[in-house]
Amino acid sequence: MERVDLHELSPKLPAYLAQAAYLQLTFFETLGHVVASAPTTEAKIALARVADRALDKHEALVAEIVRRGDDPAQAMEPFRAGIDEFQRVTRGNDWYENLVTCYVTAGFLDDFFVLLGAGYTGEAATRSVAVFRRPSGSEDLVALIQAGIDANPRLGSRLAMWGRRLVGDTMLVARSALVFGANHDTDEARIEPVFTELIAAHTRRMDALGLTA
Amino acid sequence: MERVDLHELSPKLPAYLAQAAYLQLTFFETLGHVVASAPTTEAKIALARVADRALDKHEALVAEIVRRGDDPAQAMEPFRAGIDEFQRVTRGNDWYENLVTCYVTAGFLDDFFVLLGAGYTGEAATRSVAVFRRPSGSEDLVALIQAGIDANPRLGSRLAMWGRRLVGDTMLVARSALVFGANHDTDEARIEPVFTELIAAHTRRMDALGLTA
Repeated sequence: MERVDLHELSPKLPAYLAQAAYLQLTFFETLGHVVASAPTTEAKIALARVADRALDKHEALVAEIVRRGDDPAQAMEPFRAGIDEFQRVTRGNDWYENLVTCYVTAGFLDDFFVLLGAGYTGEAATRSVAVFRRPSGSEDLVALIQAGIDANPRLGSRLAMWGRRLVGDTMLVARSALVFGANHDTDEARIEPVFTELIAAHTRRMDALGLTA
Repeated sequence: MERVDLHELSPKLPAYLAQAAYLQLTFFETLGHVVASAPTTEAKIALARVADRALDKHEALVAEIVRRGDDPAQAMEPFRAGIDEFQRVTRGNDWYENLVTCYVTAGFLDDFFVLLGAGYTGEAATRSVAVFRRPSGSEDLVALIQAGIDANPRLGSRLAMWGRRLVGDTMLVARSALVFGANHDTDEARIEPVFTELIAAHTRRMDALGLTA
């Protein structure tokens, strides 16, 4: 993914770390739910591995917050309500929709936090960006979703719709992490290429499922 | 914990590994649920750490199964229904009961698998027993449960009752992992000191909450 400069709109590093850490926690929660409701033992085992990766990212970000001398719970608290609401609106109606939620929202937001992270200097930021670049297990999610679509082609069109709905809510939660200045039009112009880039990555993600974004 | 010989009643190592791995997966699922329903950000963060430990134990046991050349999902499949049922009957009615479930059932069964593991020779068994001896984060569970009881003493008596109910179901699932021989009375005599030991550890666990077992 190209570097697009979001520097001017980046929140302060503590806010970046806190939002990212809380988001990984909610990804883990959603993954925990899909593990618990998985129809086969094989799917459970694969998804547990994906959940472990989200949890490890969360832990690594919490460790950064602690290293700065901040309290993780206090740091995350201001972002909790907004991200909980994002989690609520992106909750799927069944197991497959929830798999797509895990795949689409985490994929988009990991990309977004990589781009946003380019705006910081220092080792903490470098380490954090490396966290988002870690493998997320998306290939396991893709395999499970594709198996579902292969077995039931009508599922595909439902999941394509669901993916479109998700990307809107995910863009909103990403935008809410940005700090807008006085000149709103300039800021919007700055954001546009970033979101164009993120949506292109989203389209490739849906393509990997054989679905139209 | 003293070594009590369960050798004669131990399942074959693959069955031991598979049951243990699937149990850690269900502990993780229950922990995922308590993370998602935690009332504070602080509790969420602490419980995510506990969930990560269960998940790491699960992964380590899966790695042992793979190292033997077995398929993890196939290996766990025969035990799934029984353990899922155990998970169902030990599901609490609220957040605190679920915390006690995580603390009591995982504590008891980790102890049990350590004892059972003494019956095997070889590196795989040694490594697996070391997995159950890893810290489980029980001190975090104790702190959260105690804070709840301190704030509401009536909760204590309800959780004491719940702990008694749990130990019965947990003993049953532990017993179901044993392979009984032709002479049932001899086997029962062999099991008794083991369960006496495990119940003593359970009593200490409830004591740590200030509750009577």
